Amino acid sequence: MTEPDWGAMAQDWLARLARCSEPGPGVTRLPFTPEHRAALEVLTDMMQQAGLRVSLDAAGTLIGRLDGPRGAPALLMGSHQDSVREGGAYDGIMGVVLPLLALMKLREGGVRLPFAIEVLAFADEEGVRFPTALMGPRALAGSFDMAALELRDRDGVTLRAAMEGFGLAPGEIPRLKRDPAQVMGWIETHLEQGPVLQQAGTSLGIVTAICGIERHSITLTGQAAHGGTVPMHLRRDALAGAAELTLAAEDLARATPDLLATVGALQLRPGVVNAVPGEAVMTLEIRSPSDRVREAAGTELTQRAREIAQHRNLGLDMSRSYAQPATPCAPEIVTLLSQAVTEDGQGAMHLPSGATHDASAMADLCPVGMLFTDCRDGISHHPDEYVSPRSMSDAIEALARVIRHYDEAPLHSAD
Amino acid sequence: MTEPDWGAMAQDWLARLARCSEPGPGVTRLPFTPEHRAALEVLTDMMQQAGLRVSLDAAGTLIGRLDGPRGAPALLMGSHQDSVREGGAYDGIMGVVLPLLALMKLREGGVRLPFAIEVLAFADEEGVRFPTALMGPRALAGSFDMAALELRDRDGVTLRAAMEGFGLAPGEIPRLKRDPAQVMGWIETHLEQGPVLQQAGTSLGIVTAICGIERHSITLTGQAAHGGTVPMHLRRDALAGAAELTLAAEDLARATPDLLATVGALQLRPGVVNAVPGEAVMTLEIRSPSDRVREAAGTELTQRAREIAQHRNLGLDMSRSYAQPATPCAPEIVTLLSQAVTEDGQGAMHLPSGATHDASAMADLCPVGMLFTDCRDGISHHPDEYVSPRSMSDAIEALARVIRHYDEAPLHSAD
Repeated sequence: MTEPDWGAMAQDWLARLARCSEPGPGVTRLPFTPEHRAALEVLTDMMQQAGLRVSLDAAGTLIGRLDGPRGAPALLMGSHQDSVREGGAYDGIMGVVLPLLALMKLREGGVRLPFAIEVLAFADEEGVRFPTALMGPRALAGSFDMAALELRDRDGVTLRAAMEGFGLAPGEIPRLKRDPAQVMGWIETHLEQGPVLQQAGTSLGIVTAICGIERHSITLTGQAAHGGTVPMHLRRDALAGAAELTLAAEDLARATPDLLATVGALQLRPGVVNAVPGEAVMTLEIRSPSDRVREAAGTELTQRAREIAQHRNLGLDMSRSYAQPATPCAPEIVTLLSQAVTEDGQGAMHLPSGATHDASAMADLCPVGMLFTDCRDGISHHPDEYVSPRSMSDAIEALARVIRHYDEAPLHSAD
Repeated sequence: MTEPDWGAMAQDWLARLARCSEPGPGVTRLPFTPEHRAALEVLTDMMQQAGLRVSLDAAGTLIGRLDGPRGAPALLMGSHQDSVREGGAYDGIMGVVLPLLALMKLREGGVRLPFAIEVLAFADEEGVRFPTALMGPRALAGSFDMAALELRDRDGVTLRAAMEGFGLAPGEIPRLKRDPAQVMGWIETHLEQGPVLQQAGTSLGIVTAICGIERHSITLTGQAAHGGTVPMHLRRDALAGAAELTLAAEDLARATPDLLATVGALQLRPGVVNAVPGEAVMTLEIRSPSDRVREAAGTELTQRAREIAQHRNLGLDMSRSYAQPATPCAPEIVTLLSQAVTEDGQGAMHLPSGATHDASAMADLCPVGMLFTDCRDGISHHPDEYVSPRSMSDAIEALARVIRHYDEAPLHSAD
């Protein structure tokens, strides 16, 4: 029997799922919508093809389960079904399709597993429709805040009403909490959404941690002035201060391993050609897989901002508006994934994930790990998002090996 | 007989004129409006008090004339009657009031002049109502473009219709051109609109030149990217490039005498907290009393922008969108004003004017000079604009001396 072309099959399956979308460019599939329903029907069919028993939990998570020996714990895999508006055909949903194909591959090879496997398709990771996200994994981890059910989408529909309209019983969510003893781990496959793997010429990468994030809101206040009547030495130019801070953030991040710093937004007042800017309002975002590195950077750049404001005689209002700690991936899963990718585990590309994923919430329940595929030109959240069949084939192969190695590995060991 | 308090009188006169305004904060007096008409009536009364014969020319310039001996040329003084919206009570109009009071002062002293004097109140210098300005001085210099009469205000009224509705015959403008042999010079008094004189603790300053201005439109194009997924060394951050150019402009202007450089506007795309900016659109304005210095700075900063774009792998679109040469003040008038301010001409504060004035257009007709008064905190174009009676008194005294010195000085000599 010829081995199927798993990469081409993944591409076909994802094309089929991409049609479960609102009209318009790319894929738009929001939670608890007719497009979500259509995707669940297609996914149910695929899960059944992979030999899984399919159910939908109260949080809207579609679960395909392959039972193991009686009482055996389960290895969980998957990702989210939803997309951003006018997003791509891979983000999230590829992480559901690839483990299904890995299970099919194992079944064709006659492999029988000593534990259960579940492949999960969470309803909402992107948080596009409601101002909350990660409901599915939080329900499993027991960290879901039931108050979020009262949040509304832009049409005024509450999350609760949307879920009930979808046939779910959100009141049952607290009962979804899993017993950690029955969960071996969470392995999520996702496109990198960045250029690192493509630049390195490798199809797969192993995530070491999901970066922590902190954001600062910064206002520098100087004195708006006529650009013709105020000499340079009497100016209090808010933009010049903002420019110094922007370059200081860049310098620090370039010089510090595992640190990203971004000034993404900057607005000036009055903001006209012939006026010295009197006010600059800017954002600073810092990400790192190490909370220590991130927090040290936040402290250092706050100090730099104070120095810049002082020597330029500017007012400074700087506050940390958001902070989320990093999620380290479990060393034993990093090792298993590395071995699956390169046989001996040497030379596997390791990298942090700068973006948040379902794994961030699953980490409250069990050890987590992530496998990244490369993507074309680092493009994501865009109709041009693309992962090659070859890279997906490599991922399916690696996932199949991980599942087999999990078989051989002592459960929950730090190996 | 007690000498009148000329500064207090100036304050009274300006308060009377400030009431010729649209309702609202500060002064709003646009050309060819009922407020303009009201101001002309008040000014006519003041000119007559100063012993002048009053007329209104076809460009809407109110002219108060004191004849000299038959065939003698005239010294022209004055400024503009109009304000910006919600502007102050001094900008422009003070330059009409102070020479009138200087002439009253000379008359009370029994001085008779061997030349004619005209005090002019131009209709429109600010260019707020119509997208043109300086019509009055351009008419006198013969440089007015009659096509401007077809420009419209925001209500769709043409300049021609507005002037006709004001009782003027704009078709007569070409006949206003003066014979340069009959014009001795133009002396304009204006508040500084900047902080230099106040910082120096002096009430009066002599303008050496009206700065030339050039403006550049700059677009830096990098690659918008997720702030979490693109490592620092792979970023093409348009804001970081804009920040470098902003600081380069500031550095150059700080290090170069007689140079001002301002980045007043900067917009980013996408301009959100978690995205590396892919595009920065910014302005650069350069001013100098020396065209050579200004043009060298434009060339150098264009070169710097190219270097920044190259080393950051950014696209650069930079073009000079506007350029206006400097107007040097006539050395003989600078000398006369310096002597009038300090008796021996030593120690008078000299400074360039960063803003444009009626004198810029009058320079096409005759030698020009400007006397600046200090103003509180450099504030102008704002209801809080303020010049003290003491400073105005100093200016009246200086103007009276200049008029007397002109009496003694050989006409048109470079002294």
